[in-house]
Amino acid sequence: MDDRILLDAGSGGRASQRLISQCFMRHFSNPLLDRMDDAALLDIKGPLAMSTDSYTVTPLFFAGGSIGTLAVHGTVNDVAMLGARPRYLSCACIIEEGLELSTLDRVVADMAAAAQTAGVHIVTGDTKVVPRGMCDRIFINTTGVGEIFASPVPSGHAARPGDAVLVSGALGDHGLTVMGSREGLSFLTDVASDSAPLNHMIADIITACGEVHVLRDPTRGGLATTLNEIAEQSAVCIDIEESLLPVHESVRNGCSFLGLDPLYLANEGKCICILPQDKAEAALRAMQASPYGKEAAIIGRVAGDGKPGQVRLRTRIGGQRLLGMLEGAQLPRIC
Amino acid sequence: MDDRILLDAGSGGRASQRLISQCFMRHFSNPLLDRMDDAALLDIKGPLAMSTDSYTVTPLFFAGGSIGTLAVHGTVNDVAMLGARPRYLSCACIIEEGLELSTLDRVVADMAAAAQTAGVHIVTGDTKVVPRGMCDRIFINTTGVGEIFASPVPSGHAARPGDAVLVSGALGDHGLTVMGSREGLSFLTDVASDSAPLNHMIADIITACGEVHVLRDPTRGGLATTLNEIAEQSAVCIDIEESLLPVHESVRNGCSFLGLDPLYLANEGKCICILPQDKAEAALRAMQASPYGKEAAIIGRVAGDGKPGQVRLRTRIGGQRLLGMLEGAQLPRIC
Repeated sequence: MDDRILLDAGSGGRASQRLISQCFMRHFSNPLLDRMDDAALLDIKGPLAMSTDSYTVTPLFFAGGSIGTLAVHGTVNDVAMLGARPRYLSCACIIEEGLELSTLDRVVADMAAAAQTAGVHIVTGDTKVVPRGMCDRIFINTTGVGEIFASPVPSGHAARPGDAVLVSGALGDHGLTVMGSREGLSFLTDVASDSAPLNHMIADIITACGEVHVLRDPTRGGLATTLNEIAEQSAVCIDIEESLLPVHESVRNGCSFLGLDPLYLANEGKCICILPQDKAEAALRAMQASPYGKEAAIIGRVAGDGKPGQVRLRTRIGGQRLLGMLEGAQLPRIC
Repeated sequence: MDDRILLDAGSGGRASQRLISQCFMRHFSNPLLDRMDDAALLDIKGPLAMSTDSYTVTPLFFAGGSIGTLAVHGTVNDVAMLGARPRYLSCACIIEEGLELSTLDRVVADMAAAAQTAGVHIVTGDTKVVPRGMCDRIFINTTGVGEIFASPVPSGHAARPGDAVLVSGALGDHGLTVMGSREGLSFLTDVASDSAPLNHMIADIITACGEVHVLRDPTRGGLATTLNEIAEQSAVCIDIEESLLPVHESVRNGCSFLGLDPLYLANEGKCICILPQDKAEAALRAMQASPYGKEAAIIGRVAGDGKPGQVRLRTRIGGQRLLGMLEGAQLPRIC
């Protein structure tokens, strides 16, 4: 087996078969994938949730995760946010000629481990190899499907005045970690990505509360941008308390030093949950019972007044300011 | 609207929203996509077929199609090969900073038109922008799901001795076209890609014949490689008649000049169909009734003897030779 990936491996011929069997099938093997037909046959009942994401993060490996963990967690979480149990993922890789096979193997092993923890199967895939310089090492697309069990189905359009707003844990860890490891910022040694599968926690929240209006994961653009999207989609004003927002001390300090705002940094293992006020405590307990929700908090509420589409932040000193949507990019290739 | 795509458009913030609404939503708009939640809610019944492909073809536009038509046809066809009606696609784009917005718009318009012809909806998506030099203009992943209606479900494992082998039309058009337009080979002016959606023709074949053992589309690696895969999966020997293989005169001449074999060139609008001999004529008629199957032919049969895993070609002069699987790459980035 060559120790670097050659163009031939993307040809669809014998060399492709070798790469697929020696790397992908070895890690992902399951009865559905092993059929190796043009499509996978899924025994799944609708209604379904379907979501896709391409992962282009650099570096490929960082504290707390890798492009492989993100590629599974990111898509599993997006499917779960519709009140669904993620069941199956596809995996499509675009690989730069010359990538070390050992690197690919680590990435694929990370994906397999993340899929096992999340309880999903990778059932179909595709491998392309492009000439050197035509992509940066490896890009991964995963698309996921899951069975919807929530009723009503959570949606960004469903926030209502009076609802409580919760977040499942500390903000900004992923964004700051990737930035730090890319730039070699040695003072950021105590931050790590929050990359995690939230599907089991989401199922527990829905089981505990029944009626959940909104579930969203604040990835690119961070909490502030996602709350703005919800405020716009639901045509409501959302009030957030700065003092209630969970942010790790190390992230707060790092952001302060670098002039960043953790509310705009990407998260890869957090969800925003908006639901009736009288269910807020039950949702909080369900989050805190999960290993990924220990630092969950009620952070605000949907206002009865205010301008639809706005997010207002009450600051620690009692002032109020509008929290806008991210305008530019804090950092490209964060996920 | 800027005339080139900037990094900001991949940030997940306001600039991303603008690109999504001004380009993707304008072309793809449908009630499922327009919800813009983390996942799409699909009203679909199992069992399902699911398939994924990433498209990295260069050039982006060529005679007979584009990366946009391929991204729809390729995945629609893969889903259809499981005896399924393709219903929904995801669309995830990785875009190089600086790509002309007009180019993206043409690609997305091609996808929308192809989806409409195929009768599928694009329901969820993702857009990443990577810095200049980190990918080559645009890569597109589509993942498709469809409802399986065939019984039995066709599979590469199901070819049986005595079965007839059909192909739905002329071979090698796509591969030679892309090669020609990339290399500026002016004598190849009369070839064009066969990029086409086969789902309606497939449905007609299954309706007409009932029992279809194998359906596969011979893309990368061409007819020869795909037949070898089927011979291996089904542990049978397949006999093909060279004189029965449909190849356009222009493709035969171009291949002869360039030293290529059309049996190893990619097709993007053809299927191989293997089924009981007594249903071969009905399958042929169903193919020929489709605009994409006019040149369909019965090209051979599954042998009662021979070594499992082998494909034998009876030549025009009456000899016989083994048709192996593609070993290397005839051409990278063909789809």
